[in-house]
Amino acid sequence: MNNTSKHTPSDSDLQSEAPDEKVVYVDCRDEVAHISADEFAHPADAAEHIQNLTLEKQVCMMQHLTAEDAAEALAEMEERAQTDILQNLDPDVAARILGEMSPDDAADVLSDLDAAHRDRLLEFVEAEDAEEIRTLLSFDEDTAGGIMNTEIIILNHRLTADQAILHIRREMEDKEIPYYAYIVDGKQRLVGVLSLRDLLLCRPGSILLNEVSDQSLISVLFDVDREEVAHTLARYDFMALPVVDYEGHLLGVVTYDDIIDIIHDEASEDMLGMVGAGQDESVDTPWLESVKVRLPWLLVNMLNSTVSACVVFMFEGSIASMAILAVLMPIVANQAGNTGQQALAVMIRQLAVERFDRKKSWVAVLREAKIGLLSGLIVGVLVLVAVTLFTHNFKLGQVMSVALAMDMLLGALAGASIPLILKELGRDPAQASSIFLTTLTDGAGFFIFLGLATFFLF
Amino acid sequence: MNNTSKHTPSDSDLQSEAPDEKVVYVDCRDEVAHISADEFAHPADAAEHIQNLTLEKQVCMMQHLTAEDAAEALAEMEERAQTDILQNLDPDVAARILGEMSPDDAADVLSDLDAAHRDRLLEFVEAEDAEEIRTLLSFDEDTAGGIMNTEIIILNHRLTADQAILHIRREMEDKEIPYYAYIVDGKQRLVGVLSLRDLLLCRPGSILLNEVSDQSLISVLFDVDREEVAHTLARYDFMALPVVDYEGHLLGVVTYDDIIDIIHDEASEDMLGMVGAGQDESVDTPWLESVKVRLPWLLVNMLNSTVSACVVFMFEGSIASMAILAVLMPIVANQAGNTGQQALAVMIRQLAVERFDRKKSWVAVLREAKIGLLSGLIVGVLVLVAVTLFTHNFKLGQVMSVALAMDMLLGALAGASIPLILKELGRDPAQASSIFLTTLTDGAGFFIFLGLATFFLF
Repeated sequence: MNNTSKHTPSDSDLQSEAPDEKVVYVDCRDEVAHISADEFAHPADAAEHIQNLTLEKQVCMMQHLTAEDAAEALAEMEERAQTDILQNLDPDVAARILGEMSPDDAADVLSDLDAAHRDRLLEFVEAEDAEEIRTLLSFDEDTAGGIMNTEIIILNHRLTADQAILHIRREMEDKEIPYYAYIVDGKQRLVGVLSLRDLLLCRPGSILLNEVSDQSLISVLFDVDREEVAHTLARYDFMALPVVDYEGHLLGVVTYDDIIDIIHDEASEDMLGMVGAGQDESVDTPWLESVKVRLPWLLVNMLNSTVSACVVFMFEGSIASMAILAVLMPIVANQAGNTGQQALAVMIRQLAVERFDRKKSWVAVLREAKIGLLSGLIVGVLVLVAVTLFTHNFKLGQVMSVALAMDMLLGALAGASIPLILKELGRDPAQASSIFLTTLTDGAGFFIFLGLATFFLF
Repeated sequence: MNNTSKHTPSDSDLQSEAPDEKVVYVDCRDEVAHISADEFAHPADAAEHIQNLTLEKQVCMMQHLTAEDAAEALAEMEERAQTDILQNLDPDVAARILGEMSPDDAADVLSDLDAAHRDRLLEFVEAEDAEEIRTLLSFDEDTAGGIMNTEIIILNHRLTADQAILHIRREMEDKEIPYYAYIVDGKQRLVGVLSLRDLLLCRPGSILLNEVSDQSLISVLFDVDREEVAHTLARYDFMALPVVDYEGHLLGVVTYDDIIDIIHDEASEDMLGMVGAGQDESVDTPWLESVKVRLPWLLVNMLNSTVSACVVFMFEGSIASMAILAVLMPIVANQAGNTGQQALAVMIRQLAVERFDRKKSWVAVLREAKIGLLSGLIVGVLVLVAVTLFTHNFKLGQVMSVALAMDMLLGALAGASIPLILKELGRDPAQASSIFLTTLTDGAGFFIFLGLATFFLF
């Protein structure tokens, strides 16, 4: 199992005690013993345990665990913890751990280090592994190339089924679980995919090329956005999706477990982006960093509120002589804002799971308009009654209910359209959409309500 | 391939022409030819194509396709389409299609039919299949039992590795791809899991029991919430997770492809629930149905706005003599609302991917408080300058900036706490949280601002 780590306690103790080390001497023997004794059901559990320790202990553990255990745990940790540990670990220890990882995990772990530190670490990694990691790092993190795994079973199309099975049994010892075997032609171009199950069901002597000749092959280009890769894999319920270059050469595969993480990430990005929080924020993000990301959007919101305030300012005279207007106007804005946010949420989620054409977009906007109009009419009638009873002013009730219905319709239209417009502009459909929406429903709500009131009541 | 469908074109034509059929005569030969000619790379594509046809054509196609093709396509369709088709299909045709499906797919498809119709269809299904489908239907849809798959490879712990492989090759012909084989004792209790890869790497004569004796087995109980099942599977990157009863008997497995759908659903539920839209709404939901779900929350929002309006009403006198207060007060409320929503979004997403203990909850609330306080102070200073310059009223500037900072802090605290409180109460942490938040930030914002203004400026 542990074939590269020739790491003895004594030489690590030496390292930890060396006076110019960043890491002070800490004792992590108990923790190492826990992990080595297989107390954790899965590396993910070990990773969580290690992440809750101090950085000094984390580094100490990485030095004292076998390279394989350390690699498994490190791969399961959160990005921030991975980066912190690698920055504080001796390059040779780090390299030994990286050498035990699959190239795509190693590339993931390294992707957040600065380039200089990364290159220094890669010098300690075996040349062939380092080369593969460098190639993986060269792909955009948000594309199929950036998330793919390169440890795959590749079979020449001229092999027979039994040759293929023999080959797989040989390769399997040191590769991740192969879900599928990929069949390539003489020029390494992908021509087919066979599951292990398919292969075991083939007649032993049959040539692979014949087995895959009538396949409709589903693959993705290396530069396709990872969100789209997730859509494709989820749509077809595949365990893995082959990634090819423009000439059809097989580069790697994206597997279902990466996709699960991406779907989680994308959902978070949408919800956080909508309100102008950092798209990869979590409760573990340092709070000052969160302030830095969120403050600009709060200031945008501030500017937008100021626009709405200017609208109110235009009608300062009406409010001075009829202060009840100031009492009622937030209700109009608030109600339209909520209506719009319902439409917004439905559209953003739909865009997250489905591609829209122009016709579907129109149908969806029209649908929200109908919902907004009917809700607006119902709420409008209720408000007409309530305001008239409360203020004994039927005209004010009319103005309020008409303004409410109009602003709710507008909110629904805006909520449905903003994500589509942002998408059309090549932006993230969720980004700050809630802030834009509120600006519109507030500004328009105040203008319609105060405008109608000024016109009809004075 | 197509071993149960003895369906010839002539007898179906007869059915379609029968005068008392619900389905009018439609010609779907072209569409059937497309699908039979394998023009679609995957049943998901065929399903999408069929879903876009009229219901009459959909039903016609289900009758004319082979039962296997029809089953594959039906399983991939959306719930609404599945139910519509089944309600309009002859029971014997429907039963033939259901017979071709895996029991968990069949149970899914049947779950939205009313019980009477469901029972009538199941009478036409083979007794053994029907029994299995009924068992699956008896589990709560939102639990592990409700999403599990029962077509699994089960091996007795006394078998040797080579006996096991032989057994698998025999079973594989008519089961879904087996990711893992499950090892049970004489009483059908789960004792271990081996991947195909593990099995192929075993020494041929070794007893399975010995191979799995030191495993730390990870399984879920049948009544565990599906969201928690998704967490567990995603955490450990498993392809499938065994489901057991309280005595440890193996009931089935939940596979990664079901989990991907659940993660999508849960993310939608959170985002839609937050603003009081229907948790399973999509742009395809009939609009009147959406009005029915959303209107109650809009009315709750209305009531909440009225509370805020009452706060403003308390200060009607101040506003009448100083209308600029009405201009500035929405800015305070809006800004605090946005601050709170950022905190809210971060917390809801985090709760979606992670379990919180009390300590972590406090740390997270404290973090948001710090973010809210600092953002509030920065925005407060900017507002102090802007309001003073604009109104030439330093005191008003002070009141506005203090109110803003206080309300933003409150918004951050509320945004972080509301999901935790809802969760503590056993509710969905997202449900209507945005509405509750806005009520609080509006009401408090108006009260603090108008209160301070009345106290200090008059």
